Amino acid sequence: MEFKCKATADRTYKVHFEWGILDRLRAILESENLDGPYYVISDKNVFHHQGRRLKSALKGAGFHHHLVSPGETSKSLKDWWRIQDFLLRKGAHRRSVVIAFGGGVVGDLTGFAASTFMRGLDLVQIPTTLLSQSDSSIGAKVAINHPHAKNLIGSFYQPRIVVTDPALLQSLPAREFSAGLGEAIKYGVISDPDLFEMLNQNLEKVLSYNQEHLTALIARCIALKIRVVEEDEREEGLRKILNFGHTVGHALEQATRYRLLRHGEAVAWGMLAAGRLAIRRKMWDPGEFEKLRSIIVRSGALHPFGSLRNKDILKALKHDKKKTGKSLNFILPVNTGKVAIVKDIAPAEVQAAVDYILNFRY
Amino acid sequence: MEFKCKATADRTYKVHFEWGILDRLRAILESENLDGPYYVISDKNVFHHQGRRLKSALKGAGFHHHLVSPGETSKSLKDWWRIQDFLLRKGAHRRSVVIAFGGGVVGDLTGFAASTFMRGLDLVQIPTTLLSQSDSSIGAKVAINHPHAKNLIGSFYQPRIVVTDPALLQSLPAREFSAGLGEAIKYGVISDPDLFEMLNQNLEKVLSYNQEHLTALIARCIALKIRVVEEDEREEGLRKILNFGHTVGHALEQATRYRLLRHGEAVAWGMLAAGRLAIRRKMWDPGEFEKLRSIIVRSGALHPFGSLRNKDILKALKHDKKKTGKSLNFILPVNTGKVAIVKDIAPAEVQAAVDYILNFRY
Repeated sequence: MEFKCKATADRTYKVHFEWGILDRLRAILESENLDGPYYVISDKNVFHHQGRRLKSALKGAGFHHHLVSPGETSKSLKDWWRIQDFLLRKGAHRRSVVIAFGGGVVGDLTGFAASTFMRGLDLVQIPTTLLSQSDSSIGAKVAINHPHAKNLIGSFYQPRIVVTDPALLQSLPAREFSAGLGEAIKYGVISDPDLFEMLNQNLEKVLSYNQEHLTALIARCIALKIRVVEEDEREEGLRKILNFGHTVGHALEQATRYRLLRHGEAVAWGMLAAGRLAIRRKMWDPGEFEKLRSIIVRSGALHPFGSLRNKDILKALKHDKKKTGKSLNFILPVNTGKVAIVKDIAPAEVQAAVDYILNFRY
Repeated sequence: MEFKCKATADRTYKVHFEWGILDRLRAILESENLDGPYYVISDKNVFHHQGRRLKSALKGAGFHHHLVSPGETSKSLKDWWRIQDFLLRKGAHRRSVVIAFGGGVVGDLTGFAASTFMRGLDLVQIPTTLLSQSDSSIGAKVAINHPHAKNLIGSFYQPRIVVTDPALLQSLPAREFSAGLGEAIKYGVISDPDLFEMLNQNLEKVLSYNQEHLTALIARCIALKIRVVEEDEREEGLRKILNFGHTVGHALEQATRYRLLRHGEAVAWGMLAAGRLAIRRKMWDPGEFEKLRSIIVRSGALHPFGSLRNKDILKALKHDKKKTGKSLNFILPVNTGKVAIVKDIAPAEVQAAVDYILNFRY
């Protein structure tokens, strides 16, 4: 299956999507005029499990690789510069092809490195986690972190192609997989009642890596993400709704210093907070919120975040607001599949929503 | 006077151009919806001479500034990162406006910093040297240097506007001014016989900062540069002709470790070498080459480059070729105002052209 995504007014790229497609990678790259040697950036875990398969898929084409440590700390100035060194040392030039082989961290870091080396090399995203397959590999946002602000340094840089193989998820640790479900659930709430229902009914099949259901889920998310980014590449309007669950989610990540929670886990908590806020405002049907609650609990994405206090989270929320120069916005469901951007949230409402997740029992 | 430059398929930016226009800067920025506070990056020399005028032009709008050392060494990882820190510390956010106030180094460094902070802030180029006014401030190429390769790390990033005030050149050191003439002379040879003639006849008036002649010269260069970059933003075809004089020029810069020669000076030498090569091939009229020689000598751009040997320059040429993965191309004049890309240059021809500049007497 192929998806097309409009990158700019005059350029489109394809998402090549199929169970087991990695084995046909070389033919796909060559059909897109992306010739080797390939410069592969990956993390040590992913490469340990899947590196051999990737190498064998690219056999004979020339292959250089550079590995980073798994985890958010690799989205650093140092790692970015090391990739520039690696590319220079291994003779990369303007026509060279860089492959990001990993999850969101590898995709962001590699994408930014590819965007800056000789003012931009061709970039292939091969996402290996549920989160990156269904969400972060599509769209142009690439970045590294500043010690004081996540994703502060980056650019908008479109991949030449994305190659997505759901079979790769079989070697994914359960926690990573569950965290990735967070974003899929989000898509259901913000724009796709069928996806929401599909998750509610088939979540256990998805969690057991059932080929049919997993493929269907990811395909649906890819299509949704493409629709959103095409309409709003620079996150100026529609794309904001993707931030459902992210207001409190970001604050949780920050209050736990990006160490305790994966992004998808923080978003799962954030969706509970936002959903609860919507219910208290009588904006959304309580029965639907109950379904969301059940899906999130069953997904396994609710990793505990330790002994935070209400004020830690509120402080982080305020910091976020100051940093972006924007008022505190919440994306809240009005129907399942439809959200509104709400700006007049009172501090007491935020506090109640945060209390809800602090005291959550499951 | 305003020039329009097509940035992408769906965006255009203006070059606001006029003697003394800096004093109207604030009104121009506001008419383009570029509101303060402004984040100004400049170098210590430029700011010493012109900083007060800039500040007064932006009075009341909010003004933060960060100064770098003059010269190519500031296009470094460290300086780029310091600008990110400066922007973060001073509260810049997505809608903030960054102003590059200086020559090519400041424009490249600031442009790259603006392109990466929060994935891209609005960038205003205010070029203060002849080279940057007539050439480098237009077009999207921004970059910093890697210790082993000039301009290795960068991006294509369009300014929101360019504000060009030729009156700023009056405080420019004579050497800088002469070096800047190199690129103007280049435009004459590659695409504009009238400009070439204008330079030949009025060079002394330009060198004495005559308002009329200087304005006319820069306006002509801006129009030419816009035409070239619009047709070929990513330097894949037409833009290559801008490299007239750059093959040997780059080699000279590299062989002297970017310390002895300004870029425009290296290009001036490179044009002599390329012109000579064209004459030996009987591609170009010797009388026209004689004119080029006279213009270059009178411009003052032929700064001595010390005790280089032929083989030092040839080695640097080979290195350049290897780095870019391309064959050794020369851009050679066929008529004044028209050049050809020539690929079948024999080593003996290159050697003879290099000998010509090594033994040049003026």
